[in-house]
Amino acid sequence: MKLALLGCGTVGSEVVRLMRTRGEELATRVGEPVEIAGIAVRRLNRDRSHLPIDDSVFTTDALGLIKREDVDIVVEVAGGIEPARSWITTALGEGKSVVTANKALLAEDMPALAAAAKSGGADLYYEAAAAAAIPLMRPLRESLHGDTINRVLGIVNGTTNYICTQMSQTGATFAEALAEATDLGYAEADPSADIDGYDAAAKAALIASLAFHTHVDLADVHREGITRVSPADIASAAAAGRVVKPLCIATREEDGVSVRVHPAMIPATHPLANVNGAYNAVFVEAESAGRLMFYGAGAGGTETASAVLGDIVAVARNKRGGITAFPPEAAYSDVPVKPIGKARTRYHVSLDVVDEPGVLARVAATFAHHGVSLATVHQSGRGEDAQLVVVTHIAADRQLSDTVEELSQLALVHQVTSVMRVEGE
Amino acid sequence: MKLALLGCGTVGSEVVRLMRTRGEELATRVGEPVEIAGIAVRRLNRDRSHLPIDDSVFTTDALGLIKREDVDIVVEVAGGIEPARSWITTALGEGKSVVTANKALLAEDMPALAAAAKSGGADLYYEAAAAAAIPLMRPLRESLHGDTINRVLGIVNGTTNYICTQMSQTGATFAEALAEATDLGYAEADPSADIDGYDAAAKAALIASLAFHTHVDLADVHREGITRVSPADIASAAAAGRVVKPLCIATREEDGVSVRVHPAMIPATHPLANVNGAYNAVFVEAESAGRLMFYGAGAGGTETASAVLGDIVAVARNKRGGITAFPPEAAYSDVPVKPIGKARTRYHVSLDVVDEPGVLARVAATFAHHGVSLATVHQSGRGEDAQLVVVTHIAADRQLSDTVEELSQLALVHQVTSVMRVEGE
Repeated sequence: MKLALLGCGTVGSEVVRLMRTRGEELATRVGEPVEIAGIAVRRLNRDRSHLPIDDSVFTTDALGLIKREDVDIVVEVAGGIEPARSWITTALGEGKSVVTANKALLAEDMPALAAAAKSGGADLYYEAAAAAAIPLMRPLRESLHGDTINRVLGIVNGTTNYICTQMSQTGATFAEALAEATDLGYAEADPSADIDGYDAAAKAALIASLAFHTHVDLADVHREGITRVSPADIASAAAAGRVVKPLCIATREEDGVSVRVHPAMIPATHPLANVNGAYNAVFVEAESAGRLMFYGAGAGGTETASAVLGDIVAVARNKRGGITAFPPEAAYSDVPVKPIGKARTRYHVSLDVVDEPGVLARVAATFAHHGVSLATVHQSGRGEDAQLVVVTHIAADRQLSDTVEELSQLALVHQVTSVMRVEGE
Repeated sequence: MKLALLGCGTVGSEVVRLMRTRGEELATRVGEPVEIAGIAVRRLNRDRSHLPIDDSVFTTDALGLIKREDVDIVVEVAGGIEPARSWITTALGEGKSVVTANKALLAEDMPALAAAAKSGGADLYYEAAAAAAIPLMRPLRESLHGDTINRVLGIVNGTTNYICTQMSQTGATFAEALAEATDLGYAEADPSADIDGYDAAAKAALIASLAFHTHVDLADVHREGITRVSPADIASAAAAGRVVKPLCIATREEDGVSVRVHPAMIPATHPLANVNGAYNAVFVEAESAGRLMFYGAGAGGTETASAVLGDIVAVARNKRGGITAFPPEAAYSDVPVKPIGKARTRYHVSLDVVDEPGVLARVAATFAHHGVSLATVHQSGRGEDAQLVVVTHIAADRQLSDTVEELSQLALVHQVTSVMRVEGE
């Protein structure tokens, strides 16, 4: 059994190393040895002497490597949309199974890739694409397919979880926590993919597609980054027994599914509340299975390579058995994805208000005017001002955001100090 | 596709109900409808009119049902060793794939059952056998098979976790917490299987076999129940920033694997420390994947039925594809299981001692005499006595238990108030 490795960066190098150190065990698990036939790289002139593999396997001709007759499996860890898409499509077209960690491509183009896998009679596995080594895709694709999933709440980006954890535990501002994350190598030089939520949104699309058996596109995911999370938000959450987490939220509702990525407050007693630092976790609510959680490292070369290796063993075994296993996506439900305005959420709103009679009544009337009912209201003196912290009942997100918009224009409201959705209650 | 259901108790009834309510979805996932051909029960004269299935499917002739030509899959949820063993062996011998939740049987007889599956060319799936709906068997069997697992720490029995949680949170004694668990239906009338660790030991054998690719028998598992956990243990743990949990611990060491089930102290910051009430969780340390945790309901009819349904879909899909998937056990490593005396552990020991000079030196010398070195010692006055709390470094369990034995006989030691292993640090 031979594989073509496309890309030899952090993850690719780890795959090479693990295939060497675990070669014997892999052979036992697959039933025959699995060898690296070739590795496609962008430039041949980099020093790769630290890798336990002969220099002759490197090539810049990825397509030629994919099409080589002795290649059975293609492992794509190069990332990006092109040329990864052409490579994967070519491989599947040749009936060669593909293992990939490319969340961006999968979230953008799953239907076409799934169709290519089907017509080529090949497997497309991608356990490493979301939450790295945490077995998540396979439980969603296979273990829970006798059940109905109603909600997924996940912390699927380690960089932003590290930042929120630091802000909560040390009182740091967003900028300070980001600088620390950059120093530690958790955040990249251009942190936008993480802090603006693009990375999490791609994972949310994959997770929601599998959980609800429908196709959710990257463009369907409502995305808000964590750049506006303030120490005031963190403090207001803590005072109410909650913590701020960067969440991906996918829910099945009567009229469709809602998939969104944004910071939110969750109760300090929620299992996700203790998932700190760069760790990831995905919390699943299924009709029969109840509440499940999957926890682990959500990034890292070795961790991602572990998931890639698990997939390599699986597709190699399938290949030997002459079968393909589960389709990459089973979008038979075809339920609509709702816009964020129609998503059903709860808001936590902190307001600095004038401390005089009637303020609370005026604020409450503004919520009522938009059809939003209140769960709790706390009022506390603050020198000449007062602070109001309001938590609403569930309402359409649009009703809530319209209310906040109107509140911010009231003369007796000095400032809206914190607005955040509340989840997991 | 037709299945025979063996047993119609709590789990079996839920399987019937779910197959009816989710029939259409199951058919989509499998690729054809899956029907219940018959249900084997012990007595026909019980009222089963609440079940959404025709009375005519019930039979007392399990073997006849299994052998019926139109039956493709056999689902065993009757429990117990016999006749479950004969039923499963017969089914596998006929080439019919089996889904079972029978941990006791699997832990006792896996090699024979795996051989029967292999020679019959049939699947044997058992996701529901450990930790109910938590996808655990499949990740261990499949997702992590490119990795090397070094340690598994699990809370795999909901009854004993509920009892330990109550003792920690309310100060209840073991007897009081057990009485509460019985009232709530968490503990059975005869609670021995739970509180003496038999249930957890069977699950530990299954988990260790899969994690280390070797065969671990129920008899290989060192088993201690939670009946001797005292409020003094709980208090001593809390004072040291730890909590007491009923653990299953499987470790890979240089000279073999160690598999044991006993109450232990873990740091309050360990992810398992917050797994409370009847919830279960399994914490896995893998070489590349790092630290992973799987969390969810570890028992319950609906939760167990969810796992059974997931397996039904999987074996039905395999059957349609004309393949069998993973072997039920892949014991190719064949590493020895070490006796408890040779397991490497740490002890937390609380002693009531005479409050006079030289006591600490005498106690420390006793540890040293057995080659055990100390990590921390805390001494505090207690009226005329003093309390010593000692936490050791890692040593062979035998060295530690011998030390405690000798300590308890020292004249200056009034009482050994708490002895417990420390894990997860």
